[in-house]
Amino acid sequence: MATKQWAIGVDLGGTKIEAALVNGNGVIEHRVRVKTDVKDGVKSIQKQLVQVVRQVLEDKKETEPVGVGIGVAGQIEKDTGKVIYAPNLNWSDVPLKENIENGLKLPVDVINDVRAAAWGEWLHGSGKNSSDMVCVFVGTGIGGGIVSGGRMLTGHSNSAGEIGHMTISVDGPKCHCGNRGCFEALAGGWAIAQRAQNMLQEEKYHNSAIIEKASGNMEDITAKMVVESYHEGDAAANHLMSKVTNDLASGLISMVNAFNPEYLVLGGGVIEGMPEMIDRVKSIIKERALKVSTKDLKVVPADLHNDSGVIGAAALAMQLFNNKK
Amino acid sequence: MATKQWAIGVDLGGTKIEAALVNGNGVIEHRVRVKTDVKDGVKSIQKQLVQVVRQVLEDKKETEPVGVGIGVAGQIEKDTGKVIYAPNLNWSDVPLKENIENGLKLPVDVINDVRAAAWGEWLHGSGKNSSDMVCVFVGTGIGGGIVSGGRMLTGHSNSAGEIGHMTISVDGPKCHCGNRGCFEALAGGWAIAQRAQNMLQEEKYHNSAIIEKASGNMEDITAKMVVESYHEGDAAANHLMSKVTNDLASGLISMVNAFNPEYLVLGGGVIEGMPEMIDRVKSIIKERALKVSTKDLKVVPADLHNDSGVIGAAALAMQLFNNKK
Repeated sequence: MATKQWAIGVDLGGTKIEAALVNGNGVIEHRVRVKTDVKDGVKSIQKQLVQVVRQVLEDKKETEPVGVGIGVAGQIEKDTGKVIYAPNLNWSDVPLKENIENGLKLPVDVINDVRAAAWGEWLHGSGKNSSDMVCVFVGTGIGGGIVSGGRMLTGHSNSAGEIGHMTISVDGPKCHCGNRGCFEALAGGWAIAQRAQNMLQEEKYHNSAIIEKASGNMEDITAKMVVESYHEGDAAANHLMSKVTNDLASGLISMVNAFNPEYLVLGGGVIEGMPEMIDRVKSIIKERALKVSTKDLKVVPADLHNDSGVIGAAALAMQLFNNKK
Repeated sequence: MATKQWAIGVDLGGTKIEAALVNGNGVIEHRVRVKTDVKDGVKSIQKQLVQVVRQVLEDKKETEPVGVGIGVAGQIEKDTGKVIYAPNLNWSDVPLKENIENGLKLPVDVINDVRAAAWGEWLHGSGKNSSDMVCVFVGTGIGGGIVSGGRMLTGHSNSAGEIGHMTISVDGPKCHCGNRGCFEALAGGWAIAQRAQNMLQEEKYHNSAIIEKASGNMEDITAKMVVESYHEGDAAANHLMSKVTNDLASGLISMVNAFNPEYLVLGGGVIEGMPEMIDRVKSIIKERALKVSTKDLKVVPADLHNDSGVIGAAALAMQLFNNKK
């Protein structure tokens, strides 16, 4: 793809809306960000979205983006770009693609935010040029994108990649989704916080740095506090993160054995906070997954960090709309 | 595909070699089967394979098959059709495609036997016409084939679909692969036998029909005996198979959430022996998997039974070699 092509990638989240002008090499040339104004509902958020994109177009008049890709944390209907459900925004059945196209007079595509980030890592990040890649983001929850045979899998109703809800422990802890023992209920950020809260009830851990960081309020403990305490050498945090790393590796082994990727790309807040997990996870996978599946496997960190979503959404828009010009 | 086209599908196993003449509608028109002669090694088995195919050609002179597809229980190198490792045949690095092409003067393709069976169910069986299908065979082990976006996934080194080795129980029982808690180590045929052997140590189960069927020799217990005892109303078998069904559902939920198939096709000896598992598994999946992933999901039995492998291998050959004629 030529550098002299542009698309706009948007990350529409419950706390901020960011629009970025991205070129054909996946480089962000300009960006505009606003706080999401959730209190006035769907209309005001859509208005904000149109405004930030217009601002980018105004700031960079010399470019002519081919279209707009919008990443949303939610379920998106394939083809229509309708947001079926987005809990952070409190949206149901919002025809976002249609509404924003009407507002901007530019072609728009809407995609799940995690899948957008996987597109970013695939086309311009750590999985570049691979036809078989699994990208896993460990943040508050766990989500991912799967590229197999050179294509991003979407699934029958556009929900492929919900790997946070693979079962890794048949009788494991309850998950937010209603099932038990899901991957993210053991290794996601919210689960790390919950596991710490449970573990720290034990008297031997009562002087843990984690409790101190939460000013003694167990219910205020976050995954971030656990990871920070780990880096400070706290015994409780060390014990917990060693278990979490093992559980993370177990879920990743499922992906490696089922999909046989060449690249396993790991990103998200938990991984960024504790990048040394990657080497540990890699050695567990090499030890325990099928030899035939790990022979050429590369386990690598995501390298676009917080920008993978906007870069991926823009790259997708470029791929979709370039030929239509 | 026209009916007036044929290919030959071969199932090369450790106990028998079967070659079938299959037409463009996936119907077997003729078949020849011999016992595998393993004692003289690679050469004699290859000779047998060429002979059974020649016999089919001889019996059905009026047809002109476009090529031969061979399903082998083992790891197959993509493109070269070399058998890297096939434990049942005790083979390593056998250039099967090349050798059989030389013997038959027909184009040959070699494929993993489970993936061949998945091809059969996809093109001519229960998953017909679906672009998103997961096919799971529960026999001695558990294996499968994944069709996503209208293509069978192969993975980077041709081992995609090894779903029997997804982790479903992080601290679960040891698997033959060396890892712990694999899907097949809880719900595969060998695991059912092993779980029965362990469970029947308990005194309350000492009058179980399973023990009687094994003539009192615990180590002779098989999954088949457990399933038969289940059908006879044996309490121990009922208890165990209820646990196994639950574990089977957990592994399938992983597949449904990660891949979002339209069809989940279930086959293999354990399912064939206890088809009522399908409805039970279906209701657990509908209850516990993500709603977005189960909305249109159909959970159905494989309908080609023991013929899925030869039909699939032939269908693959037809697809590969038809255009080259």
